[in-house]
Amino acid sequence: MPPSVRLITWTPEADRLVAAAARLCYSPGSASELVSELKAGETDRLLKHLSRSGHLSPFEHASFVFGVDGISRACSHQLVRHRIASFSQQSQRYVRAEKAEVVIPRTVETNPEALPFFREAIRTAYAAYGELLARGVPPEDARYVLPNACETHLVVTMNARELLHFFSLRLCKRAQWEIREVARQMLCLAREKAPGLFAIAGPGCLTRGGCPEERPCGEPYSSMEDLLEKP
Amino acid sequence: MPPSVRLITWTPEADRLVAAAARLCYSPGSASELVSELKAGETDRLLKHLSRSGHLSPFEHASFVFGVDGISRACSHQLVRHRIASFSQQSQRYVRAEKAEVVIPRTVETNPEALPFFREAIRTAYAAYGELLARGVPPEDARYVLPNACETHLVVTMNARELLHFFSLRLCKRAQWEIREVARQMLCLAREKAPGLFAIAGPGCLTRGGCPEERPCGEPYSSMEDLLEKP
Amino acid sequence: MPPSVRLITWTPEADRLVAAAARLCYSPGSASELVSELKAGETDRLLKHLSRSGHLSPFEHASFVFGVDGISRACSHQLVRHRIASFSQQSQRYVRAEKAEVVIPRTVETNPEALPFFREAIRTAYAAYGELLARGVPPEDARYVLPNACETHLVVTMNARELLHFFSLRLCKRAQWEIREVARQMLCLAREKAPGLFAIAGPGCLTRGGCPEERPCGEPYSSMEDLLEKP
Amino acid sequence: MPPSVRLITWTPEADRLVAAAARLCYSPGSASELVSELKAGETDRLLKHLSRSGHLSPFEHASFVFGVDGISRACSHQLVRHRIASFSQQSQRYVRAEKAEVVIPRTVETNPEALPFFREAIRTAYAAYGELLARGVPPEDARYVLPNACETHLVVTMNARELLHFFSLRLCKRAQWEIREVARQMLCLAREKAPGLFAIAGPGCLTRGGCPEERPCGEPYSSMEDLLEKP
Repeated sequence: MPPSVRLITWTPEADRLVAAAARLCYSPGSASELVSELKAGETDRLLKHLSRSGHLSPFEHASFVFGVDGISRACSHQLVRHRIASFSQQSQRYVRAEKAEVVIPRTVETNPEALPFFREAIRTAYAAYGELLARGVPPEDARYVLPNACETHLVVTMNARELLHFFSLRLCKRAQWEIREVARQMLCLAREKAPGLFAIAGPGCLTRGGCPEERPCGEPYSSMEDLLEKP
Repeated sequence: MPPSVRLITWTPEADRLVAAAARLCYSPGSASELVSELKAGETDRLLKHLSRSGHLSPFEHASFVFGVDGISRACSHQLVRHRIASFSQQSQRYVRAEKAEVVIPRTVETNPEALPFFREAIRTAYAAYGELLARGVPPEDARYVLPNACETHLVVTMNARELLHFFSLRLCKRAQWEIREVARQMLCLAREKAPGLFAIAGPGCLTRGGCPEERPCGEPYSSMEDLLEKP
Repeated sequence: MPPSVRLITWTPEADRLVAAAARLCYSPGSASELVSELKAGETDRLLKHLSRSGHLSPFEHASFVFGVDGISRACSHQLVRHRIASFSQQSQRYVRAEKAEVVIPRTVETNPEALPFFREAIRTAYAAYGELLARGVPPEDARYVLPNACETHLVVTMNARELLHFFSLRLCKRAQWEIREVARQMLCLAREKAPGLFAIAGPGCLTRGGCPEERPCGEPYSSMEDLLEKP
Repeated sequence: MPPSVRLITWTPEADRLVAAAARLCYSPGSASELVSELKAGETDRLLKHLSRSGHLSPFEHASFVFGVDGISRACSHQLVRHRIASFSQQSQRYVRAEKAEVVIPRTVETNPEALPFFREAIRTAYAAYGELLARGVPPEDARYVLPNACETHLVVTMNARELLHFFSLRLCKRAQWEIREVARQMLCLAREKAPGLFAIAGPGCLTRGGCPEERPCGEPYSSMEDLLEKP
C-alpha cells in the first residue's frame, strides 16, 4: 500500500485569515474588524506579496491536520524530525503488529532478483516477532526484530509556514522518495483549501530561481503542475 | 477601554479530533478512520484521562485564533514572551498613533489623587509625539516618547496545549491584572468551542490541588466558575 | 553493547549563569555585572527556589551536548520526538550498515528460548540487506529490511530546562528501558557539571510528591541515589 | 547610553563541534570519537559547505549567551519576538525605575528643534511615575506612564542557527536602527569565538546575492567589513 494522506481538518478561510493578520501589522484599526473587512482581491494581492518577500509569520495562524497512513517507520522517523509540528503516532510499544504490513520500495518491487530476499527477510522478522511474544517477551521488546519497512500511522499538524518549509525540503528530488510522496499529497490537499497560501511552494528550483545544493539533481521542476504530478 | 478578546476562528470539532488522535497511539487501525468512528461518550472519557495524567501532546492538534484589542504595550510585551504561539501585532513603526488610546489601570482610575498625574503624563507624551513628527522625526523614533499604557492590537494563535500552559501561568492571581483579564476572556471563548479540552484549566490551586509558589497569594480559586467570573 | 552516553561539551559555570540571569529579572543593575557579582551561597539558594517554584525559564541559558552511541533505532525514534532539542543523527540513507550492530533487549538476552529467534531474524535481515545492495538496490531502500534493533549514533543538545522535562518523562519506570538508561546517563553527566541545576530532577514520584499517572508503577523512587543507580 | 552587548559565555570550540556533528550524519563511527578526530582544515571546509547549501541544523549545537544593556523597551519588545531563543529580562513589575535612564534616537538627538519636546516628555513621565508611587499605586501599574524609551536589561541566549536567522533579518538596513546595532555587536562578538560558523552572515544582499524585499533599500552591503562597521 502506498502512503495515503487525508486532510482531517483545517483552519477555515485560511487565505483570508492570514491576509487580515498581515494587514493588521500595517493598518490602524482593531484585530477583530480586519477579518470581516477584507476583500477577496486584496487577499490575493497581499498573500502574493508576503510569499515573495518571505514575510511568512502571518502564515502561522492557519493550520492543517493530516491523517498519514501506510508509511514506513523509516519515513516516520524522518517526518517527526520536523519540530514545529505536532504528531500522534501509533505506538509499537502498545499496539501489536498483527500481520506483516510493510512498505516495499519501488527499486525492490521492480527488481525480480532482489524482491525474494526482501520478502524472506520480512517473513522471518514477523515470524520471529510472533515467537518472541509467544515466549513471554513484551511487545515493546519483541518489536526490536521488526523492520524499518513496517507500516505506521500518524496524525500530523503543521501550520502553513512550517508546511512551506517542509515542502521546500521534502519535495526536493533529492529527498527520500517516500516522504516526498507524503509531502506531495499534503500539498495537493492543502492547496484545495488555501490556494493563496500555497500558490508558491516547493524546493528552491521552483520557488527561488535556483538550487542551493552543491550537487543539484540536474532535473529542476518546471512548474507547479510538474511538482504535483503523481510519480 | 478594557481588553477585548474575540475568537476569530478555531479548529472545528476540536474535542473529537484530539480524542481520536490520542486513541490512535494505542489502537490498531488507520489515522483516517479513527476520527469518524469516535463516539461522544468516549471522547469525554479520553479527554478527562489525558488532562488528569498530563498526556497533553494530542491537545496540540487543536488551535485557536484570537483577536486581542485594547491592551497596553506593557501587556503585549508579556504576551509575546509565549514562544509556542503565533502573533501578528500592529506596528508602532508603521502605524501612527493618531489619538491617545491608552489603558488606565484600575489602581490609578480609582485613585483621585493619582489620576491627574497619569492624565497629564499621557497628554504630554502624545503632544510630544505630535511635535516630533511635525519636526521630521520618523514615527519609529517619535514613538520612543509614547507610554507603556498605549493601546495595541494583535492576532494571537495558540494550540490547546499551549493555551493550558498559558492559563496555568496567567490566570494565577499573582499574574499582572491585564494579561490575567486577557487570559480569562480567552478561556471563556475557547471553552465554548471545546469544553472537553478546557474542562480542567487554570493555575495549580485549581488544577493540581496546590500552589507551587513559595509565597502563595492566600486566596486560591474555589471552582472553575470562580475562575471565569468577571473581576 | 549497552547505550553509551558521553558529555561532549556544556555551558561553563552553568549554575552561576542561571542564577545570575534569574537575579536580573528582580534586581536593578546591568546584565553584564550580575554574573561576576554573584556569590556561591546565593547561587545555591536561588537555584533551589527556582526549581521548587517551577520558575525554570532561566535554566534555558545553560545547554549540554551529548554523544549518544549504541542505541537502537527504536530508541532514537522516541528520542527525536523531543522538539526543544537539536539532533545530528547518523543517516541510514548515506552510511552503509557494514556489520550487524544491534541492541538486544534484556528480556530477550536472558530468555534462552527466545534468543535464537531474535538472532536468526537479525542474521536474515542483514543478509538480505547485503543481497539487496549487491543487486543494485540503493542503501536508502535496502535499509527497509533492517530491524529496529539496529544501532545508531547521535549528537544531542538540550538546554537544562528541557533536560529537566526530559528526565521527568524518561526516567519514569514506565518509560521504555532503553531511553530510560540514556536519560539516566545524561543526568549523571549533567549533574557533575551543574549540580545546582539538577539537584531536583526526575519523575513526579521523586520531585512532586506523587505520580500523575492513572496507573502508577507502584514502585516510586525513594531518593536521587535510587534514581541514578545503574539498573 | 548606546546599546551595549557583552558575550557572557559560549559553547567552547563551537566550530569543531558543529563540523563534527555534521560529519556524523554521513560517516560510520561513533559520536564520541568524531569530535576528537576532526582536523582543522576539514572543519573549515565542512562549515563552508553547510553554510552555502543551507544545511544548518548542526549549527544548533553551539549556543551563545549575551548580556544586553541599555536598550529601549521598544527594542526589547522586538527582540523577544524571536522564539527560538531564551530571555531573562529585568521586570518593570518588580524593579523600580529609580532614575530616568532612556534611549534617545539619533534623529531626535541631532534635531535641536525636536529634542526639547523629547526631554520634556521624558521628564514629565518619570515625575508622574514618582507621584503615582507616592500615592500608593504599585510599581506594576505606575509603569504605565513610562515611555518606550525606558532602558531595559536582558540576558539572551541563541544557538548559532537562530543567530544566523536573526542576523539575516535584523542586520538588514530596513530593520529598526536600535535592534540593528544590537545585532551588529552580537555578530562581532560571536565571530571572535566561532569564525567558521559566522563566516557567512547577514541579510540577503550580502549572503544570497540579492534582496527578497519588494522595495529594497538601494544600498546593499558590499562586504562583511561593511556590515560590521560601527555606524
